[in-house]
Amino acid sequence: MKGNLLLLCLFLSFGIKGQENISFAKKAEIVSPQINPGNTVTFRFETNDAKIVSVQGDCCPQGGNFVKDNNGIWTFTTQKLDPELYSYTFLVDGVKVHDPNNPFLIRDVASVVNVMIVPGGKADLYKVSNVPHGSVTKRWYTSPTLNLTRRVTIYTPPGYETSKEKFPVLYLMHGAGGDEEAWMELGRTAQILDNLIAQRKAKPMIVVMPNGNAGQTAAPGESSEGFVKPVFLRPEMLSGQTEAAFGDMLKFVESNYRVKNEKASRAIAGLSMGGMHTLVISANYPDTFDYVGVFSSGMLQPKDSNAPAYTDFDSKLAKQKSNGYKLYWIGIGKEDFLFTKSNEFRNKLDNIGFKYTYKETNGGHTWSNWRDYLSEFATLLF
Amino acid sequence: MKGNLLLLCLFLSFGIKGQENISFAKKAEIVSPQINPGNTVTFRFETNDAKIVSVQGDCCPQGGNFVKDNNGIWTFTTQKLDPELYSYTFLVDGVKVHDPNNPFLIRDVASVVNVMIVPGGKADLYKVSNVPHGSVTKRWYTSPTLNLTRRVTIYTPPGYETSKEKFPVLYLMHGAGGDEEAWMELGRTAQILDNLIAQRKAKPMIVVMPNGNAGQTAAPGESSEGFVKPVFLRPEMLSGQTEAAFGDMLKFVESNYRVKNEKASRAIAGLSMGGMHTLVISANYPDTFDYVGVFSSGMLQPKDSNAPAYTDFDSKLAKQKSNGYKLYWIGIGKEDFLFTKSNEFRNKLDNIGFKYTYKETNGGHTWSNWRDYLSEFATLLF
Repeated sequence: MKGNLLLLCLFLSFGIKGQENISFAKKAEIVSPQINPGNTVTFRFETNDAKIVSVQGDCCPQGGNFVKDNNGIWTFTTQKLDPELYSYTFLVDGVKVHDPNNPFLIRDVASVVNVMIVPGGKADLYKVSNVPHGSVTKRWYTSPTLNLTRRVTIYTPPGYETSKEKFPVLYLMHGAGGDEEAWMELGRTAQILDNLIAQRKAKPMIVVMPNGNAGQTAAPGESSEGFVKPVFLRPEMLSGQTEAAFGDMLKFVESNYRVKNEKASRAIAGLSMGGMHTLVISANYPDTFDYVGVFSSGMLQPKDSNAPAYTDFDSKLAKQKSNGYKLYWIGIGKEDFLFTKSNEFRNKLDNIGFKYTYKETNGGHTWSNWRDYLSEFATLLF
Repeated sequence: MKGNLLLLCLFLSFGIKGQENISFAKKAEIVSPQINPGNTVTFRFETNDAKIVSVQGDCCPQGGNFVKDNNGIWTFTTQKLDPELYSYTFLVDGVKVHDPNNPFLIRDVASVVNVMIVPGGKADLYKVSNVPHGSVTKRWYTSPTLNLTRRVTIYTPPGYETSKEKFPVLYLMHGAGGDEEAWMELGRTAQILDNLIAQRKAKPMIVVMPNGNAGQTAAPGESSEGFVKPVFLRPEMLSGQTEAAFGDMLKFVESNYRVKNEKASRAIAGLSMGGMHTLVISANYPDTFDYVGVFSSGMLQPKDSNAPAYTDFDSKLAKQKSNGYKLYWIGIGKEDFLFTKSNEFRNKLDNIGFKYTYKETNGGHTWSNWRDYLSEFATLLF
């Protein structure tokens, strides 16, 4: 009410005349989502017209029907939730509606979802904390192999710009449907790294998040293709080109950033399709990475198994083994649809005595797991 | 159909098991918005349950009611639209719904809207073109004056990182309800600069987009306050603190970037509240900027007129005048609710013979105008 009075005074003092692009405060400020003490969450939605309002998302696997009060405010409170970054949308008479009181949305492939953080435990790593922050840059580099200028996201740790030090580098590969935004947005990479570095649980490092779709210059909406609808399956998926062009990325980073350019200071990790990229790249550059993280993946079906990156894989793997490395980390959820593929890949490694660290978790092919894996993997590096 | 088959094969080959975070292709791919030849736009929305579907936004000031076909696809085609970046949402039985086939959304204060570009003319400056791209960095700096570590968006022009050259700097201030994201998102600053620089219509320059809310460390969702709902009016609005702390920003930029640190290579511009910031800052630092741009603003009512930044303004302005400058550019729309305020400010300038360039346009207090003003102002710099 006070806010409205102030608003009114302000505009009267300006001489009101008709304005656009201005969001006026609502009569009664609706809070949604509201994270309650005890980690239940209350959602609210205002409409007089709907017959059924519900919520869907990983917060609320059983859904949840809202109850309407006399003012037309629909409300639903969840059970106690574990600490996590959750995504959700509302369903209003069967139509998907974003929570109009929560402007925080993340795109996941072509879907856009509301997000919220239920705090505590691991989820505190996903929050922006009052700690020194790294910088996040969207930058373009040239890939001679692909004959493309491409966009990449680069996290440099707090103090990078003013330090004289050289830093180790983690390359982080996204999955199918993702792009150079994915690890930053749903992966909360900058927040996880800021927090782990502040807690001295991870070393200060540069994190490079390339676009792993070889035919794509940049994320949908960020390239000259314009606002094109993102697709989950891209024609060049697992064509071997991303792996073949990785040298361009490496060269760009090592000639443009203050990095320690030695095996002991390089790591690569990726999820799903990016896990396949990771295991293939690390085997094709068998003396390049001391740290490898394969998240929710295995040997997937390449589009072109004759692509140079994919041929002679077993002998490349043997070479990688004999060259040595410090950590080969594999993580997968028990319910992941690639669980069998992951097991098959571990069998392949076992057969040649290729050592690795294995983490089997609950859950499936989810960002919840990938944030966990990154949070753990990052602490084991360098 | 082909896409679905491929999807099916892929998942069968993986051994499907139940997955999350994966967006499956729809049965029939709906395209919305579809920019037609002749610059009409067709919107589509699929639902069997709704009674009325319509569109609202600056694309469609008269709204537009959709018509439903036998497959439950609702369609509406606009009249011919001028080239522009438009924002819109759907209304489904009175409920605001984002276009589920357009994942491109921008937050404006606390509202989130779909966006689309109708190409041609000035709107081609807003597109990502196949030209060299600058880098965009989100970085944190310390403001001793405010005793805060704060986030800033910095655009460096194509080639900045590998050049040895020094560059001029434009400081770009947002309006009330905005933050360090505003000029990048709705303002399309990176695209406008990339395009103007490629066309040799603007000089390569660094653009610094600070957070102009003195009490705020970062945009909502990007600070340790967490996912808090943005407000249009902040308590510290026009308290004079943003202007008082500007020296910290200037010092940070000039000691951390390769800049030409002379008056002839510094510009400042801002919209609405940021226009007031601009005229006050440029008068308080009267020998600092050769280029000043006041967009849709004037002398607004300060919260604290005794704040040092606001006192003795007339004598500061006289000093700025006598020190000299190359361009003082004022732009406002005829329907802007601050039109009178802008006129009053021009009268003040006229009274002391303070020269300026004046651009009066159609329209109101809109991002459409602010993108126009930036597109013109940038070509006049350095």
